[in-house]
Amino acid sequence: MNFFKIEKRDPFCQARAALLTTAHGTVRTPAFMPVGTQASVKTLSPDDLQAIRVQMILNNTYHLYLRPGPEVIRRAGGLQKFSAWDGPILTDSGGYQVFSLSELNKITGDGFHFRSHIDGSSHFFSPEKVVEIQRNLGSDIMMVLDECAPYPCEYSYAHKAHKLTVEWAARSREAMQQIGERHGYAQLQFAIVQGSIYEDLRRASAQALAEMDFPGYAIGGLSVGEPKPAMLAMTEICCEILPADKPRYLMGVGKPEDLLTGIERGIDLFDCIMPTRNGRNGTAFTANGQKVIKNAKFREDFTPLDESCDCYTCRTFSRAYLRHLFNAQEVLVLRLISLHNVYFYMRLMEQARRAIVGDEFMKFKKEFLETYQNNQTNDKKGD
Amino acid sequence: MNFFKIEKRDPFCQARAALLTTAHGTVRTPAFMPVGTQASVKTLSPDDLQAIRVQMILNNTYHLYLRPGPEVIRRAGGLQKFSAWDGPILTDSGGYQVFSLSELNKITGDGFHFRSHIDGSSHFFSPEKVVEIQRNLGSDIMMVLDECAPYPCEYSYAHKAHKLTVEWAARSREAMQQIGERHGYAQLQFAIVQGSIYEDLRRASAQALAEMDFPGYAIGGLSVGEPKPAMLAMTEICCEILPADKPRYLMGVGKPEDLLTGIERGIDLFDCIMPTRNGRNGTAFTANGQKVIKNAKFREDFTPLDESCDCYTCRTFSRAYLRHLFNAQEVLVLRLISLHNVYFYMRLMEQARRAIVGDEFMKFKKEFLETYQNNQTNDKKGD
Repeated sequence: MNFFKIEKRDPFCQARAALLTTAHGTVRTPAFMPVGTQASVKTLSPDDLQAIRVQMILNNTYHLYLRPGPEVIRRAGGLQKFSAWDGPILTDSGGYQVFSLSELNKITGDGFHFRSHIDGSSHFFSPEKVVEIQRNLGSDIMMVLDECAPYPCEYSYAHKAHKLTVEWAARSREAMQQIGERHGYAQLQFAIVQGSIYEDLRRASAQALAEMDFPGYAIGGLSVGEPKPAMLAMTEICCEILPADKPRYLMGVGKPEDLLTGIERGIDLFDCIMPTRNGRNGTAFTANGQKVIKNAKFREDFTPLDESCDCYTCRTFSRAYLRHLFNAQEVLVLRLISLHNVYFYMRLMEQARRAIVGDEFMKFKKEFLETYQNNQTNDKKGD
Repeated sequence: MNFFKIEKRDPFCQARAALLTTAHGTVRTPAFMPVGTQASVKTLSPDDLQAIRVQMILNNTYHLYLRPGPEVIRRAGGLQKFSAWDGPILTDSGGYQVFSLSELNKITGDGFHFRSHIDGSSHFFSPEKVVEIQRNLGSDIMMVLDECAPYPCEYSYAHKAHKLTVEWAARSREAMQQIGERHGYAQLQFAIVQGSIYEDLRRASAQALAEMDFPGYAIGGLSVGEPKPAMLAMTEICCEILPADKPRYLMGVGKPEDLLTGIERGIDLFDCIMPTRNGRNGTAFTANGQKVIKNAKFREDFTPLDESCDCYTCRTFSRAYLRHLFNAQEVLVLRLISLHNVYFYMRLMEQARRAIVGDEFMKFKKEFLETYQNNQTNDKKGD
């Protein structure tokens, strides 16, 4: 079965348009996954997600393991039945959250000993345990447990983390064979390239994982504070080495401009909290850059958030009303701006894909960024 | 123009089914108005309200006067254009909020001197000022400024408040003539009966206001802590005196059982924060009584919140998922339970109206309460 079918490669860069088929549907790539940490894309219901053409979402294994627990989700019939989002779901491995949220007690060759950020209880994640949890969750794409090195990071630490990540990838691959499906449908397992901003480590990591022949690959440990040129360089190196016929996923990225530079380098999948988190902060993405809705200049601005957008928010409400809701701390506004922002990301990916199919991705990228970044500067001055 | 048309009177009680026509549509009464304090029914969008068949909402003059200010709403073209809810809107007078929220500095014969609960700034509400504000807001039904006596309340205080309220009603009626429409459509002005729990004061208040021939009448100053029998007695007295052919509105009421006893006594309109506030507290109204969603017994309960309900929440999600969202503090759950609760109130009013039309309101009331109150007790024991 060929679950990943490349339909078109752009002749002027590494961008490609493909179809990624999972147990819960086919995703047209390049694609952006909104983040539903706790089996809910914050403020948005499944019918909201459908209305704005979301194809696939990400759920967090660490959070769902702690609450409500994988057994509850297994008994519900998997994540889709539990949360009523019936499209494809990717779950991360939880490794990143163990570092960033929990109190990490000890890393051993076996796994992570950590304490819950919710109640301080003790837990242990091994590569095998994480496969088992994700079998219970029933996600369409499961990420392997990795060690995500922080930034900045000494070479020796990055080297050790990379070696451990490769070793755990092999154990995860094995665990996939040992621990069977729980919900009667196939799940895909993706490996994660680490190596911080060290070229030789990235090469070694990508090479070693490529040889294990995973169905797909992620580039992890980027967008963690490193300079943008380093992020681009690492993305390029990984994409050169990773198999050209398999999906590539740049984890935790990013801003609209980062998505376009990633696509240009051959990335197929992205995820980021930015559209939903900015939505809750009252910052909207528009074709003309970001808009801060509480800005006084919107007080009597009865035009839509984004003139070029046809989402429910832009079809229905004015900037003045959204500003009022935000200032009055009305929770409705969190949903309205999140809805618009996620739709902005969806349309950006759709436009990018159309451009790839039409051999004009680089032209599209240039034109989009000209409008987006030009006006963004102007708006910031006006704040 | 007869804007209030009584279609049916129940032969066994004072209940009636009527049509109340406003500039933004006709409301089938008895009707319940969800509260949209700041021009937003908390967590729900206008299309949510339409989907659950909300007919009319209430907005708060006090809040909207302070933020965003009546001038912004006037320039937007009125509340409907500002908030995108295009059905009928009733605005209260702000008197109650001046007492309950602001720092009240002084009541004079002229009006209320008070300080904003938001920024401490000084303001003044007179009967005329409140008419002018509501002209700018463009609500379909405007309430007159009244003095809502607290409970408990000395006779002398209640007497004074009642006299002031009647005097202000006359000034408000006059101001309606002096201060014209701002948005090109007619607005209705309702008076408010006060008098605390003193029968003679209620009679005097209802009588005096009835003589002024307002288009409609509200009963205020109830559901403020008085015993339930007192509330019912006062409602009965007012309904006896108020004109039989005009709408009657019981302000701030209430629980499902209170709506039914109000309808039985001849009330046509209600408003209350209960369905939305309870929604945000994780308490759902169901045919079998209230359910507290965080209850541990729902942990693996994969049935809907209310088996007899066809709202989006009940069609789509399980109690186990809603409980997870609530415990994980996911903001989506506030909307999902609020949506269900408001729809529960809408259906209750629809069922009550059908029963009135079918000459069986008392039978309906008895059967509803048997199921609702019986199981509610059971559920509370299980908590």
